[in-house]
Amino acid sequence: MIKPSIPKGTRDFSPNVVKKRNYILDIVRSVFKKYGFQPLETPAMEKLSTLTGKYGEEGDKLMFRVLNNGDIYSAASQAKDSKSLATLLSKRALRYDLTIPFARYVAMHRNDIAFPFKRFQIQPVWRADRPQKGRYREFFQCDADVVGSESLLNEIDFLAIYDTALHLLGLRKYQININNRKLLSGLAEVIGKPEQLTDLTISIDKLDKIGMEGVRQELTARSFSAGEIASVVSFLEISGNNEEKLNQLQTLLKDSETAQLGIVELREVLENTYYSFYEEPVLNPTLARGLDYYTGTIIEVKAPKSVKMGSIGGGGRYDDLTGLFGVEGLSGVGISFGIDRIYDIMEELDLFPEMVAQSTQILFLQVEPGSVSSIYSLLNKLRAENIPAEIYPDAVKFKKQMKYANKRAIPYVGVIGEAELAAGTVSVKNMKDGQQEEIPKEDVITYLKDRDLT
Amino acid sequence: MIKPSIPKGTRDFSPNVVKKRNYILDIVRSVFKKYGFQPLETPAMEKLSTLTGKYGEEGDKLMFRVLNNGDIYSAASQAKDSKSLATLLSKRALRYDLTIPFARYVAMHRNDIAFPFKRFQIQPVWRADRPQKGRYREFFQCDADVVGSESLLNEIDFLAIYDTALHLLGLRKYQININNRKLLSGLAEVIGKPEQLTDLTISIDKLDKIGMEGVRQELTARSFSAGEIASVVSFLEISGNNEEKLNQLQTLLKDSETAQLGIVELREVLENTYYSFYEEPVLNPTLARGLDYYTGTIIEVKAPKSVKMGSIGGGGRYDDLTGLFGVEGLSGVGISFGIDRIYDIMEELDLFPEMVAQSTQILFLQVEPGSVSSIYSLLNKLRAENIPAEIYPDAVKFKKQMKYANKRAIPYVGVIGEAELAAGTVSVKNMKDGQQEEIPKEDVITYLKDRDLT
Repeated sequence: MIKPSIPKGTRDFSPNVVKKRNYILDIVRSVFKKYGFQPLETPAMEKLSTLTGKYGEEGDKLMFRVLNNGDIYSAASQAKDSKSLATLLSKRALRYDLTIPFARYVAMHRNDIAFPFKRFQIQPVWRADRPQKGRYREFFQCDADVVGSESLLNEIDFLAIYDTALHLLGLRKYQININNRKLLSGLAEVIGKPEQLTDLTISIDKLDKIGMEGVRQELTARSFSAGEIASVVSFLEISGNNEEKLNQLQTLLKDSETAQLGIVELREVLENTYYSFYEEPVLNPTLARGLDYYTGTIIEVKAPKSVKMGSIGGGGRYDDLTGLFGVEGLSGVGISFGIDRIYDIMEELDLFPEMVAQSTQILFLQVEPGSVSSIYSLLNKLRAENIPAEIYPDAVKFKKQMKYANKRAIPYVGVIGEAELAAGTVSVKNMKDGQQEEIPKEDVITYLKDRDLT
Repeated sequence: MIKPSIPKGTRDFSPNVVKKRNYILDIVRSVFKKYGFQPLETPAMEKLSTLTGKYGEEGDKLMFRVLNNGDIYSAASQAKDSKSLATLLSKRALRYDLTIPFARYVAMHRNDIAFPFKRFQIQPVWRADRPQKGRYREFFQCDADVVGSESLLNEIDFLAIYDTALHLLGLRKYQININNRKLLSGLAEVIGKPEQLTDLTISIDKLDKIGMEGVRQELTARSFSAGEIASVVSFLEISGNNEEKLNQLQTLLKDSETAQLGIVELREVLENTYYSFYEEPVLNPTLARGLDYYTGTIIEVKAPKSVKMGSIGGGGRYDDLTGLFGVEGLSGVGISFGIDRIYDIMEELDLFPEMVAQSTQILFLQVEPGSVSSIYSLLNKLRAENIPAEIYPDAVKFKKQMKYANKRAIPYVGVIGEAELAAGTVSVKNMKDGQQEEIPKEDVITYLKDRDLT
């Protein structure tokens, strides 16, 4: 008998973890809904033709492919190497993110969808990455996007969604950073290297990790001149409040029309009073974001500085989500919440309310065979009132039943012994302070409701 | 450009479908919780060593295996046929049901679990079955089990859970059938064929499909004698109310101790008044259930006769769930809800409340650029009150904005034009009856709350 285990990089989610994760997801979901977003779910498996080539060579390697059923032996004979063998033996793979399946969905259903299409999607994705602390092979993504609208009101809503949701979760002092890709395009133009925009973006994106000196070296290696690098550095070192930064950027990038458009967009997003932020978004010219497809606003949310966790969410505007699937001209903007990291932060800062881990409110012990019927009449009433309640199913030793209540963290234990049965009462024990009260059966619901922690 | 599509047998769940499915799942989940069940989630992928051999040869064939990453080419060279190739190239497979992962979880975490362990689990499973109407390659299972308790109170609770949940969903006249495997064992004993219990069970399980004459033929083919078959038929034809059936069974199977124990168990489950059923469970001696591992109570819930749908749920007691994983002696009982079928029935009978498909309660149109700020001050208040509300993000033609409201089935449309802006009002249009009212801005929340459909 081999000791059972699960695949490397995957996790069992025990009841308390599921409850805590659902606490986060329920809040995020409720905020999405308040803003008019609707839920979408796509299959775990997609055709390889949908996924291949969308995530770079690295992504193709890290995809979990599903082996074809049926006669794979003869198909395999034509293979020349591992790559061609994989192609011959699989035509489906597990979802690698939620963005490509969403684009595929929009392209497939474009005639039925009411545009602008505002959807959220919370589902697991799978990547054959080397597992390490905080990095799993199966993890949840939590995305919201609007496609089919170029209005910057969408950006304003997404900033508000981050702020509302994170505040509701109990987080404080998170930093909502915003930038616009058009500024980076403008910078590349202004220094005369528009064709090296991607190099520039990739280098700037590493600033947090490698520091300004590292960025200088990177750019030198990518054959930027000393003068060009000086311009990049002065761009990255812009400081002040949002208004001051915008004014400096406007001057620095005055020769780029693209950059000026980016500044207009940033002003529109930042200089309005449509929503009052708990934590004001901060214009951060050093924000670049790795992904190629962003073309306008980019957003990244960082964890409070007191926890060393980095980014807990990000997103941006893209001009062409569905072009890959033959539907051109659909601009969109989207964000995602890093659920696993938010979970870890909330654990670290002890932000989960006590009631989250709780389920059953009262456990009735079996101490007197004649009282089961009486207990059930109470259970029915409690359950009808949506108060989770149980009877310990087996008439075992008192101690064993109490141990179960303790291990499950059930806050109240009810006993109907011979005396209580005769008197029409229940002895209710508060498991936290050990206090015990004998109360009339008909008062149990009110008693628990007054003390309801759920 | 190839038209995008999804793998055969899988489905996209569009917003309205997700909302309806969540309506069902939320109700089922709330009932599980009221009875003290806790959520569990396990990974989509399990090791093949966990899954292989647990579902018979057919199951091994229908499992979706995940291709190993890395050098599969040299590994493949040792293969002799498709089966050995699959073994060489994959060490993981997608979950085939929720029962085996649950057993694996219990075995792995037995030292941390508070027994009796009451868990529910609602997750997709994958099977490479030939897709057909109502049969998918990715579908949700919805299970609840108690392990570590032999008490029949668990059975009583599960019957109540079915009845409560189905009634809350709006279903009526569903049939909760109950039987006990010990009766079938007893029948096999009494006719002198205890070693052919499985043959007997499989034949009886087909009664619904092939009729009594079919069962006779099956049993003849399996070398049961005419006399033996006559006994089986008289067992299957037992009729009357539960009490009458139990009395007849008691006489018919008087020579089997096992059967008598089954009858005692059935009496304990059926002859109590712990819970008042909307639809009383019916003892059905012809109920056999396909699965091998049931040893006591078996339950099956059938759809109302007005819809031709068959079973919408089932379960039973098993003596040894985790023995496969080295943990002996854990008895358990569990049930499952056939979510896809319940969904189809509710569509057919029009049981989804109108509000389920609704999300955004009011859409504000953009007709007057100067009113956006005023609209946002309202949006903030509505959203703070958990009333989903949107502004149409682009200042496009009125008609296009209205078309969006219609397509999204948004019940109210709000307009703040020049006149309303001056008067501090909103014109609210009821999209159903076309009625329009101009109301003060500060009354909008009350107005919508009075008409809240969510």
